[in-house]
Amino acid sequence: MESVSVKLGSRSYPIHIGADLIGRAELYAPYLVGGGAAIVTNEVVAPLYLAPVKSALEKAGARVTEIVVADGEQTKSWQALNEVFDALLEAHCGRDTLLVALGGGVIGDLAGFAAAIYQRGVAFVQVPTTLLAQVDSSVGGKTAINHPLGKNMIGAFHQPRAVISDVATLDSLPERELRSGFAEIIKHGLALDAAFVEWLEGNVDKLVSRKRDALAYAVRRSCELKARVVAADEREAGERALLNFGHTFGHAIETGAGYGAWLHGEAVAAGMVMAAELSSVMGHLKKTEVSRVRDLLRRAGLPIQGPVLAPERLMELMALDKKAAKGKTRFVLLESIGRAALRGDVDEGRVREAIVAAAQ
Amino acid sequence: MESVSVKLGSRSYPIHIGADLIGRAELYAPYLVGGGAAIVTNEVVAPLYLAPVKSALEKAGARVTEIVVADGEQTKSWQALNEVFDALLEAHCGRDTLLVALGGGVIGDLAGFAAAIYQRGVAFVQVPTTLLAQVDSSVGGKTAINHPLGKNMIGAFHQPRAVISDVATLDSLPERELRSGFAEIIKHGLALDAAFVEWLEGNVDKLVSRKRDALAYAVRRSCELKARVVAADEREAGERALLNFGHTFGHAIETGAGYGAWLHGEAVAAGMVMAAELSSVMGHLKKTEVSRVRDLLRRAGLPIQGPVLAPERLMELMALDKKAAKGKTRFVLLESIGRAALRGDVDEGRVREAIVAAAQ
Repeated sequence: MESVSVKLGSRSYPIHIGADLIGRAELYAPYLVGGGAAIVTNEVVAPLYLAPVKSALEKAGARVTEIVVADGEQTKSWQALNEVFDALLEAHCGRDTLLVALGGGVIGDLAGFAAAIYQRGVAFVQVPTTLLAQVDSSVGGKTAINHPLGKNMIGAFHQPRAVISDVATLDSLPERELRSGFAEIIKHGLALDAAFVEWLEGNVDKLVSRKRDALAYAVRRSCELKARVVAADEREAGERALLNFGHTFGHAIETGAGYGAWLHGEAVAAGMVMAAELSSVMGHLKKTEVSRVRDLLRRAGLPIQGPVLAPERLMELMALDKKAAKGKTRFVLLESIGRAALRGDVDEGRVREAIVAAAQ
Repeated sequence: MESVSVKLGSRSYPIHIGADLIGRAELYAPYLVGGGAAIVTNEVVAPLYLAPVKSALEKAGARVTEIVVADGEQTKSWQALNEVFDALLEAHCGRDTLLVALGGGVIGDLAGFAAAIYQRGVAFVQVPTTLLAQVDSSVGGKTAINHPLGKNMIGAFHQPRAVISDVATLDSLPERELRSGFAEIIKHGLALDAAFVEWLEGNVDKLVSRKRDALAYAVRRSCELKARVVAADEREAGERALLNFGHTFGHAIETGAGYGAWLHGEAVAAGMVMAAELSSVMGHLKKTEVSRVRDLLRRAGLPIQGPVLAPERLMELMALDKKAAKGKTRFVLLESIGRAALRGDVDEGRVREAIVAAAQ
């Protein structure tokens, strides 16, 4: 087991990474101050991992409440949130209850947000069981639910007390979801660390074949990179925006394809190719570097082209996103492999050019 | 105008106290970073004060969205919260929107909580228009809504950027609500400041006749006292509990009488007499001091006896409260006028004795 520390002053916390961690009582014990714990998970994860987590908590001395919600993005809703609160209150869970979020990004977002606002905030530990959640949502404390008028519109920054990232749980992850996680790992490299990109180029086949050591290293390095950015910018005022490399295009792809048709990581992968092409059009990135981006994504089993959509439609969707945020569309570009920068002065013609180039 | 500073590091904020403040544009201007503001108020307050607040915000350069919800405790609900979110999203309010909470404690709790979780947190300014809100909920950043299984069960600590306490708005306050505010003012004195109790004994008649200078001083001193405690204990881990003087009994009275039958301040007043009697039974407070508590409350127009309830019923309700909190019932007692202390070792017989003495 290795541990990465997310340094946020009094809200600092460790991320433990390794195989066969979820059943280790000592990883939960420090956070069981009141003796009560509630596990929030979904109906897909529960049959796989609820029992070992529950037994670890009980071994650590906790009374455990189980809260099993439906699987899927629609669970990031008021309704599911209220199911969690109803269960917590019916079980007389007080402010000293430890919430344990067991599942992927949806469960982390839902249970983390529940922890943020239940009795004005209780402690939570995240046990991410998808690669995407292990490398992305486990760092940074972003929690949220959706509103009919927008994704992640209602939420809070609420840091977990600890994250337990057990790479053995990735064995049960469907192929497509595993690859979706690779997209965020590659993003961390491309935006922040050239040496990590080289490591990925040398080890992507091991990741695809789920070698645990390779997965553990990729998770660890991703968390380290993201943790460094988050520590400098907890509330996303500046540097944290670099983590959105590929996401402006990616969100437009997700919406354009119809939510759910493309997984988040798939859309981000195709979005990163567009962003790399844009970086090239803007004169920052060499054509050979754009090819490296494409090759790495392809080897990771990710799409490198978006769905069949007119460039104008994609640009319209990005403008809509901009309108919703009431700000300018700023693009995260690559100055080189491993070095992202935020640019606000990108003209529409260049964006169109990049989309066309990415489709070649 | 006078200002009290609530010292909470990077979350510090000023409370401005005086007459005719709500229409002053310069008090809002520093917090209008994005140019947008949304006023959350209710249908009783809107006809009285929405126009001057709106025009002050517009004078300060803001685009203003108006959100008017129903009056009353039932507004601290998911439904009302979602009305606020619907309105914010329909008006395309971004993360840089300033929320302005215009009204009493319910509006402060609702709008403050909305600000805490809208797009993971936006800034808010509180404009309390009831005495209770000016002296109590304006300090400390507690926000919440109710759940069918418990009051204030869902919420957040979210500090306002500023509080604008306009004592001129108290002119429109119904008599009973004004007196309810006196209870918390007196509580601050009894728990924390003997000199303030003396000031109250000398000026309670001016408060009852709504003399603005006296009201402004009482609001200011209350805020100073509460701010000192909150600064030392923002998340209510210790000292902040002293602010609950009279509240353990008070909550039981509120529940026993049926929610809404007794105003919060009325229940706290009768609860403070019980707590004073308990302090006397425990050997801390002199009988003459208990009489001073009674006299001051009586002169402020507050009840000094609870509703007709068997002592056993009250004690049962306090035990229920305790069960809900999964903790021991700890009592805030007075060691002398102006000096409260937390005691966990109070035996039931003493509590019963105090309730009986308070009913004499």
